[in-house]
Amino acid sequence: MQSRYFTIHDHPQGMPKRDLFKLEERELPELQDGEVRIRNSWLSVDPYMRGRMDGVTTYIDPFELGKPLEGAAVGEVIESRNSRFKEGDKVRHMGGWRDVAQLPGDQVEALPEFDVPEQAYLGVLGMPGTTAWVGLNIIAEMKDGDNVLVSAASGAVGSLAVQLAKAKGGTVVGIAGDQKKLDWLESQGIKAVSYKGKGAKQLSEDLKAACPEGFDVYFENVGGDCLEAALNNLRVGARIAVCGMISRYNDQTPSAGPGNLAMILIRRARMQGFIVFDHWEHHGDFLKEFASRVASGEIDYQETVEEGLEQTPDAFLKLFEGGNQGKMLVKL
Amino acid sequence: MQSRYFTIHDHPQGMPKRDLFKLEERELPELQDGEVRIRNSWLSVDPYMRGRMDGVTTYIDPFELGKPLEGAAVGEVIESRNSRFKEGDKVRHMGGWRDVAQLPGDQVEALPEFDVPEQAYLGVLGMPGTTAWVGLNIIAEMKDGDNVLVSAASGAVGSLAVQLAKAKGGTVVGIAGDQKKLDWLESQGIKAVSYKGKGAKQLSEDLKAACPEGFDVYFENVGGDCLEAALNNLRVGARIAVCGMISRYNDQTPSAGPGNLAMILIRRARMQGFIVFDHWEHHGDFLKEFASRVASGEIDYQETVEEGLEQTPDAFLKLFEGGNQGKMLVKL
Repeated sequence: MQSRYFTIHDHPQGMPKRDLFKLEERELPELQDGEVRIRNSWLSVDPYMRGRMDGVTTYIDPFELGKPLEGAAVGEVIESRNSRFKEGDKVRHMGGWRDVAQLPGDQVEALPEFDVPEQAYLGVLGMPGTTAWVGLNIIAEMKDGDNVLVSAASGAVGSLAVQLAKAKGGTVVGIAGDQKKLDWLESQGIKAVSYKGKGAKQLSEDLKAACPEGFDVYFENVGGDCLEAALNNLRVGARIAVCGMISRYNDQTPSAGPGNLAMILIRRARMQGFIVFDHWEHHGDFLKEFASRVASGEIDYQETVEEGLEQTPDAFLKLFEGGNQGKMLVKL
Repeated sequence: MQSRYFTIHDHPQGMPKRDLFKLEERELPELQDGEVRIRNSWLSVDPYMRGRMDGVTTYIDPFELGKPLEGAAVGEVIESRNSRFKEGDKVRHMGGWRDVAQLPGDQVEALPEFDVPEQAYLGVLGMPGTTAWVGLNIIAEMKDGDNVLVSAASGAVGSLAVQLAKAKGGTVVGIAGDQKKLDWLESQGIKAVSYKGKGAKQLSEDLKAACPEGFDVYFENVGGDCLEAALNNLRVGARIAVCGMISRYNDQTPSAGPGNLAMILIRRARMQGFIVFDHWEHHGDFLKEFASRVASGEIDYQETVEEGLEQTPDAFLKLFEGGNQGKMLVKL
């Protein structure tokens, strides 16, 4: 059986170009004992993948040049030599960026049985949802009534973070760009602040106007001016959960950081970076708390869907142009 | 009775000039019920006082223009209308920058009875010592065997932090400037790294050479290049206790921050600002653990002493020129 997959043959400098990504094809080897073969139906593209293209180990191994790229995917088992899986099983795994994946069964998990579309396990009930939950509850130790600020607030993680925070009853402010995203935030009862065409100073003032008391929690996805403006609006004892700094992922030379880091001291604030995979033991708690709210339609999770394997690189690149609302997915 | 005291009549821009400080004199009012009158013998000057000169509330109220400046001091009670104190008692209080202080008794504490010189309660057994202990143990949660980096490592706080850290058995690296300070660090078994004439890049490399495994804990007193270099040398799960950022206290416009803040994410590190006064409930634990080590001579605490009330502003200004080794004190 043939598998079509994307590779890169070079480490990109700055924003990757479309022609970095090669669509290749190969005959899969015979299935080995313990392995399963999966026809993917949905692929995930995520900002963290940019870091894996640089050839250096950060918090995750780099992509290997010339080998199939990796990422979360859901699909259906089409052949199994593993007793845990049979033909027709719906599964989630990391063999994305390809149409047919072949993996050891211990790298594959069966989808839980909640009444949600299967692609939900790549977004609202997958890594992004768990990231929002862990960042707010475990890293930022969000409490009832906390005022919460979220950047990239209509993205895959941010759009869930604002809804989780809103349920705690404090003022929730989301930073986004496009009018459509701002409108969606307002429709959820979130105060929406645009970063477009503003420097850190103006953004600071707009955040202050949106929440004059300041923030107990900042869920950081962006870095740069968003971080600087957030630092100016912290309450004493604030907690910053650093989930990502997407504004910096394509920098070729490091941009300077915020000039007001001393606010960490003045506000006795805590800033902590985290990777959801370090906290995956909470995934079960997260599902228990959240899956029924998703299944009941209470959570308005957004998806941006591109169609066809060929579109995967474009879907990925759009993440850095603000081209997605909610989870960016590729439907095969 | 006359009291001589220093005031400021203006908020300084940048590094304060010597003539900002006015020595004034007044007749003290009659002692009120509950008050004590103290002849100060030692005054403390500390970097945090710079922030109190700006006229804005940060984590502590600003100094009032034209009123006596404040700061830690020790002295002897010369008159008391408070049942807790009698003439001759040795006390510590915040009525510094003056020769004779008159205060309500509830703002005065009797010196504990350890076998140490009285000025030790302004340094090694006072605020700086407690700051080092709280920063390492409470904020950075230092564990046995941790590799620890300390900036301003021969200062009042840093010189105690390196000794506390050394006792935990890991590699301890201290950043300082002058050769005399570097020599002192080496004499304590601390690896000494000079910041002089180096940018963040060279300093990063020198820290890496001193401790190739990287640091579990960074005790931050300086900011700027020291922070950037430290961020490049964190181990996964590192904790940064932000005690001060003295390199920035006299900035007139904010300097840019480190360009590598994303290391917080990559290393899943935690950076937390703290003010020792928020954690003063640990002062007793600190004394219990530390005072006997000080009294026995095990702790090599350094002091830089200026003589005479008139020298107080100069002693203060020298803090920003690296002019002190260990605690800067004024002896009256």
